[in-house]
Amino acid sequence: MPVLLIVLDLGGTFVFAISGAMVAVRHRLDVFGVLVLAFAAGNAGGITRDLLIGAVPPAAIADWKYSGVSALAGLATFFWYPVTKKVANDVLWFDAVGLAFFAVAGAQKALAHGIDPTMAALLGMLTGIGGGMLRDVLVSGIPTVLRADLYALAALAGAAVVVSAHLLHLHPMVAAAAGGGVCFALRFMAIRHGWRLPT
Amino acid sequence: MPVLLIVLDLGGTFVFAISGAMVAVRHRLDVFGVLVLAFAAGNAGGITRDLLIGAVPPAAIADWKYSGVSALAGLATFFWYPVTKKVANDVLWFDAVGLAFFAVAGAQKALAHGIDPTMAALLGMLTGIGGGMLRDVLVSGIPTVLRADLYALAALAGAAVVVSAHLLHLHPMVAAAAGGGVCFALRFMAIRHGWRLPT
Amino acid sequence: MPVLLIVLDLGGTFVFAISGAMVAVRHRLDVFGVLVLAFAAGNAGGITRDLLIGAVPPAAIADWKYSGVSALAGLATFFWYPVTKKVANDVLWFDAVGLAFFAVAGAQKALAHGIDPTMAALLGMLTGIGGGMLRDVLVSGIPTVLRADLYALAALAGAAVVVSAHLLHLHPMVAAAAGGGVCFALRFMAIRHGWRLPT
Repeated sequence: MPVLLIVLDLGGTFVFAISGAMVAVRHRLDVFGVLVLAFAAGNAGGITRDLLIGAVPPAAIADWKYSGVSALAGLATFFWYPVTKKVANDVLWFDAVGLAFFAVAGAQKALAHGIDPTMAALLGMLTGIGGGMLRDVLVSGIPTVLRADLYALAALAGAAVVVSAHLLHLHPMVAAAAGGGVCFALRFMAIRHGWRLPT
Repeated sequence: MPVLLIVLDLGGTFVFAISGAMVAVRHRLDVFGVLVLAFAAGNAGGITRDLLIGAVPPAAIADWKYSGVSALAGLATFFWYPVTKKVANDVLWFDAVGLAFFAVAGAQKALAHGIDPTMAALLGMLTGIGGGMLRDVLVSGIPTVLRADLYALAALAGAAVVVSAHLLHLHPMVAAAAGGGVCFALRFMAIRHGWRLPT
Repeated sequence: MPVLLIVLDLGGTFVFAISGAMVAVRHRLDVFGVLVLAFAAGNAGGITRDLLIGAVPPAAIADWKYSGVSALAGLATFFWYPVTKKVANDVLWFDAVGLAFFAVAGAQKALAHGIDPTMAALLGMLTGIGGGMLRDVLVSGIPTVLRADLYALAALAGAAVVVSAHLLHLHPMVAAAAGGGVCFALRFMAIRHGWRLPT
């Protein structure tokens, strides 16, 4: 797997693992439950993508770095929760960065496995929203990604840009920057200005 | 994949995608959440079946038609919800048709992949109930398929008929008609007469 | 698959299927819902493990014995619930035995598929807690395994012992006995003395 993909994947994992751990702490799970939820939120999207494209065993299983990064995020959140909480606003930003990383990495990995372009964009979205969905289901809420302001749509837009850049034979780095930028910008504007889709 | 299987699979996907979209609208998800739930309800059963029998990437990922059909069902439901709601009774019928399609397609695809007969019947049932289970879990309810009148049992009966017909070397078309008929009839009678299993 | 693995796997399946069936009865599902939840609780951990390590179709799908054992457990629980309930305390013990079986079998199967040691231990844990997680999510609760006294940790400790024994080239039987013993003992002491992790 190219270095770019690994960096994006691990970065997204770290960010989402923190979001999982924060939800776990808020639901008063013990330290181990926090670690499990950190792993689930950080890796469920990527694992699902890998199973669906036939990349078995999934990167998050074959490579200990993913669980290492998740455990780090989980422990940091557990022991410094008051600190983490205070910067909750930043976490929304942070989460938008993770979303952008995952949407890009998901789309690129699907393309690399020969998935057709439309589905590669959808898999990029799934990689972005899968972890958050499992996180919320495990604490028995309706996934916020299904309600939040332009959340899944931002991921899809970013992934679609990556796929389009690929079809135009642009460099993967350019594709990643453009797709990630679009995803982050959309999500950022949605948070800032309360942009929402009709319900 | 033979044409019969594709027609059954896409038909079931459309019907279940509508059921997913209706649940999403009722829970006030935005238009994108509606699309995600439509896709989940329409495809989770088939995707799970394909992962379990080793048909990777699953049809719903390899072929854009499945997400196309799901998106169509989701948008139709979102924009014409009042209409869809009025015909809610018909939807129960409709859903029974989808269940029959999926139970048959699931069992036939499992047989085609060399899964043993007993498990092929169970996989037909899983294909039929998987989408509805994910749909309900995502909006954090107990899956109605686990409670509803003869729901899973109708799917299993239909799938078992398909498997038996296969063992008797009957034509797949005959097997599909017989199995689908049994599944639909059982479910229809259960709705009509309130047949239930003991609790 | 070696006999030891099959025995452990089927034993764990039986025990967890009972726990799934008990939860289903308590939520007033019909007999079929009880069977589905018995199967889910008894097999979700092992199926997830098999999908993740690329052992497709998973043992629980390829081999009818797993669903047979699950159905047996489900029916027994459904028809003799008052009896089963009275021995609820024993069930906690019983469940600890199932956890030990699954943690050991999960780690050994992952090692046999060439998964690296750290991840094999985590997969052993996942095999142990996966079924209980799905069981609780399906009746829309927060998985008790994420809160219960040293539950996931006991599974991880047992799996880690198995992996360590493997690295030391000890006999699989010895590894299984040691790992299973550690898992059971930890869980038993946690129940008995209310040991918990910090929250």
